[in-house]
Amino acid sequence: MSELDHVGIAVPNLTEALALWRPITGGTESAPEDVPSNRVRVVFFTVGGTHIELLEPTEPGSPIARFLESRGAGVHHLAFHVPSVDRALQEVAERGGKLVDRVARPGARGRRVGFAHPTAFGGILVEFVEGP
Amino acid sequence: MSELDHVGIAVPNLTEALALWRPITGGTESAPEDVPSNRVRVVFFTVGGTHIELLEPTEPGSPIARFLESRGAGVHHLAFHVPSVDRALQEVAERGGKLVDRVARPGARGRRVGFAHPTAFGGILVEFVEGP
Repeated sequence: MSELDHVGIAVPNLTEALALWRPITGGTESAPEDVPSNRVRVVFFTVGGTHIELLEPTEPGSPIARFLESRGAGVHHLAFHVPSVDRALQEVAERGGKLVDRVARPGARGRRVGFAHPTAFGGILVEFVEGP
Repeated sequence: MSELDHVGIAVPNLTEALALWRPITGGTESAPEDVPSNRVRVVFFTVGGTHIELLEPTEPGSPIARFLESRGAGVHHLAFHVPSVDRALQEVAERGGKLVDRVARPGARGRRVGFAHPTAFGGILVEFVEGP
């Protein structure tokens, strides 16, 4: 069984989004973190056994900026905790699923991460997150 | 702090969606349940401390059928566990947020549930789920 590590939500403005979500999530938020490889600034809330990640684009034309332009603010991806990102990606490919990343790369919070293509999960962008 | 009770995913076909998600979620799925008040058939997976709900519309023109027509398969809502749905809805209204439900109504799994309007959380449809 995989655990849901977090739900990633694309937001145009982190400060405004934090004000909306704090009444639900309480005072559980992480310090904002820049993730240059994805051109985003992120904050994580702890919500029970999982997390909500708010993602604000740091550059026009970046993946989150383009998502916001085409679909508006909303859930961008679901991230599952796996023992090995490389193996999880390989298993998706072996089932015939398309991948965004063929192998793991550095993500937020110092974790190794990798994305399948949305078509591999019926329209949902799935991220795999490794350890601890 | 609120806990994330589940992530609701709208799918056109429950059987096909189950085949896609089982490799990630393992053998943790509930029996399919019809929720006539929402005109959906649902299945819940356990993914760590939270759940994924797959929602298949049972009627054309129902809310999930319309969501699928306009946006395609994807995350439909995020549900948070609260001690009182009525109070959670009232707190959203007091902050100036719009509501779908003014008071709790019967949902899946025999729970009392209620929805805020997506505008109340920056474009995300939020459900509150009560006890146990």
